[in-house]
Amino acid sequence: MDSLKMTPWEVSGKLDDAAYRHLIEKFGVDIISKELMERLGKVAGGELHPFLATGLFFAHRDLNLILDDYDAGRPFYLYTGRGPSGKMHIGHLLPFIFTKWLQDVFGVHLLVQFTDDEKYLIKSDRSKKEVETVANENVLDVLSLGFDPKKTHIIKDYDNAKTLYYYATDVAKHTTISTIKAVFGVVDSDNIGKVFFPSMQIVPAFILSAITGKNIRCLIPYAIDQDPYFRVSRDVLPKLGYYKPSAIISKFLPSLQGQNGKMSSSIKGSAIFLDDDEDSVKRKMMKYAFSGGKDTVAEQRKYGANPDVDFAFNAYAMFEDDPAKIRQVYDDYKSGRMLSGEMKELSARKINERLAEMRRRRKVVEKDVSKYTFDPSKFKDL
Amino acid sequence: MDSLKMTPWEVSGKLDDAAYRHLIEKFGVDIISKELMERLGKVAGGELHPFLATGLFFAHRDLNLILDDYDAGRPFYLYTGRGPSGKMHIGHLLPFIFTKWLQDVFGVHLLVQFTDDEKYLIKSDRSKKEVETVANENVLDVLSLGFDPKKTHIIKDYDNAKTLYYYATDVAKHTTISTIKAVFGVVDSDNIGKVFFPSMQIVPAFILSAITGKNIRCLIPYAIDQDPYFRVSRDVLPKLGYYKPSAIISKFLPSLQGQNGKMSSSIKGSAIFLDDDEDSVKRKMMKYAFSGGKDTVAEQRKYGANPDVDFAFNAYAMFEDDPAKIRQVYDDYKSGRMLSGEMKELSARKINERLAEMRRRRKVVEKDVSKYTFDPSKFKDL
Repeated sequence: MDSLKMTPWEVSGKLDDAAYRHLIEKFGVDIISKELMERLGKVAGGELHPFLATGLFFAHRDLNLILDDYDAGRPFYLYTGRGPSGKMHIGHLLPFIFTKWLQDVFGVHLLVQFTDDEKYLIKSDRSKKEVETVANENVLDVLSLGFDPKKTHIIKDYDNAKTLYYYATDVAKHTTISTIKAVFGVVDSDNIGKVFFPSMQIVPAFILSAITGKNIRCLIPYAIDQDPYFRVSRDVLPKLGYYKPSAIISKFLPSLQGQNGKMSSSIKGSAIFLDDDEDSVKRKMMKYAFSGGKDTVAEQRKYGANPDVDFAFNAYAMFEDDPAKIRQVYDDYKSGRMLSGEMKELSARKINERLAEMRRRRKVVEKDVSKYTFDPSKFKDL
Repeated sequence: MDSLKMTPWEVSGKLDDAAYRHLIEKFGVDIISKELMERLGKVAGGELHPFLATGLFFAHRDLNLILDDYDAGRPFYLYTGRGPSGKMHIGHLLPFIFTKWLQDVFGVHLLVQFTDDEKYLIKSDRSKKEVETVANENVLDVLSLGFDPKKTHIIKDYDNAKTLYYYATDVAKHTTISTIKAVFGVVDSDNIGKVFFPSMQIVPAFILSAITGKNIRCLIPYAIDQDPYFRVSRDVLPKLGYYKPSAIISKFLPSLQGQNGKMSSSIKGSAIFLDDDEDSVKRKMMKYAFSGGKDTVAEQRKYGANPDVDFAFNAYAMFEDDPAKIRQVYDDYKSGRMLSGEMKELSARKINERLAEMRRRRKVVEKDVSKYTFDPSKFKDL
C-alpha cells in the first residue's frame, strides 16, 4: 500500500478495493451504512442517487449528525469547490452533479469555492490573469448544471479575500507548519503560499457559523483526494468553537479522470470537454474511451463487460437521471447482451443531450452570474 | 557577536557599536555617507533632522536612487508601519516622527500599515477583537502627529485584505518556507500564518507600482529589527518586475524602548504612554528613566553625563524641533553643566508639551479618520 500516494495535488498508485480499505483506515472515515442509506433515501422520497446506490460516494464523516439536524428542523449547509486548473471535462462534473442532488433533496444553501489563489500559487508557469479567466469559465460551467440561484453562492478566493483571509487567520493560528507538512506532504522548498493555503480552503466549512453567530453544521461532498483539508479542519474547528464539518466522500474515479492516463485533459485531444460539439464527443468516445468490454464480439457475448471500469458506462450513468435505466444498461452490458460499441454510442448520445442542455442554461446564467456572488448578508434565513 | 539575536519578534544581546558594525555587514546595508547627508540636507533646506545628525538613522539601501528620482522630478513614496501589540509609549513614536519629517520635506504619499493580522497570529493569548481595538487606537495615535491628510494612507491588514492578499500571493509564490526559516527564525512548530505573513508586510513596498501600472520607488524608514522583511522583499520584487525598495534604517534604541528592561510597556507602570497625564509623565521620568548621569552631583559636575544612553535626553531630543537647542542641551549635559534632575525636568516638560499637542490633534483626526483609509483610487497624481 506504500506505493499509493494521495494528496490534493498528486494521486498515484493502484486504486483497487484494498487501496480504499487502506484509505478508510488511514484517513479515519466511515463507510456509509445501510441505515444511513435508508435515512437518505427516505428524505429523497424513496430513490437514492445512483452515485450512492453504486457506491461511488462510499464514505462519510458525521453524516448522521446532518440527518439528525435535518430531521429536527435545524439548518445545515453544503460546501464544495473546484481548483480552476483548466477547462472542465465531463469527469469534473461528478461531484457537482451529486451536490446538486443533495441541494435539491434538502433545499439548503450551497457554497462553491473556486480556489484561484491556490492554482496561481501551485502552478509555477501560470499567470494570475490566466487563472482568473479559467475560474470565470469554470463558474459558468458549474452553474449551468442548474443550481438553485437563491441558495447557491460562488466564492472566488481573490474576490472574497477580505472575508476569507479574516477567518483564515483563525485557522492558521491553530495549525502548525509541521501539521501541513505531515498531512499534505509540503516541504521546505515549497512556497509560503502553499503552506498557508489550506486555511483558505477550510474557511467555507465554518463561514456561515462565523457570519451568523449561530453554530450551523456543514456537509462537504468531495473526492477522497481532498480529504487532507477536512481532516485538518476537524482538528481546528472545535478549537474555534465550531462543529467539525461533516463529509460525504466519493472515490477518486479513474474511469472518468482518465484511467491509465487516457481520457485526461492533460493528454491533448482525449478528454471530453463541456464545449465539445456532438461529433467530437462521438469521435473521442470511440477513439479514447477506456473500455471494460472484451476484445471480440464473441467473447463479449460470452463473458460480458466490466461496467465498473468502463468510461462509456460511467459517463452514461453520470448523466442519466433514471436509476432504473442505469441498472438495466449495467445488467445488459455486464451480461454480454450489450456490446462495447453500443455502450459507447448510447453514452455519447446521453452526454451530447446533457451538454446541449448545459449550454442552453449557461447562456442564461452568464447574464446574471453576479447574483451568485457570495455575500454575507444573504443568510438571514439561517 | 553570536549572542546578538535580532528578528522582528525578538531582540536580545548587547547593542553596542561592534554589534551594529556586525549587523551592517550581516544584513548588507550601507552607512549613510556624508555625501548623502548633504544631498538630504539640501532638499530639506539646509537643516538635517536631528535623528540623522545624531546617527540614530544611520544606514540605508539605495537612498541615492530615491534622491536621484526626486532630483529628476520622478515620483516616489514612503511606507512605514506598526504592529499593533498594545498601547503606544513615546518610544514607539520615533520612526513616525522621522517619517513625518521625510513626508514634509519631499511632499510625497505615505502608506502606514498596521499589521493587526500579524499580532493576532503571533500572540497566542490575543483575541481578534482585542487586536482590532488596539489597532484603531494606534491609528489615531500615529495620525495625531499631524501627517498630511491628503497624502497619508492607513492600511489595516484585515480591512485591506482583499487588495493585500491579492498581491501577497505574488510575493508568496516566489518565497520558500526555507527562506522564511533562515531569515526570520521561523520553525516547524510555528503556525502557518506566521510563515505566510511576511508576504502581507512586503506588499506595501510595491503596491503603488502594482496599482498604477508604473514602476514607482518606495522608501521605507524602519528600525533595524524589521530588516528581514525588506531583505526578502529585495530578492522578490525584481522577480515581479518592480524596483527593490529603498530603506533608511534606524538603530534599535534601547534607551527609548527600555534599556535594561526598564521603561518598557511590558513592565507595569514604567513606560510613558501617550495618554499619561502631566503628573504621571513627571513621576515616571523621575522614578524609572535610565540615566546616563553620574551617581553624585560632584561627580556629574566633574565628569559629565553620557547623553547617548540617557532616556531623558533621548526623549527630549525626539520631541524638540530645534536642532540648535538639542545640541546645546547635549553639550551642557555631557560637560556636567547640567545635572540629571534638570535633564529629567526639561525632558518631562517637553514631553508633556508635545503630548498635549497630540491629544488636541487626535480629537480632530478621530472625527474623520476614515478619510485616511487606503484606497487604490487615490493615486491618480502618480
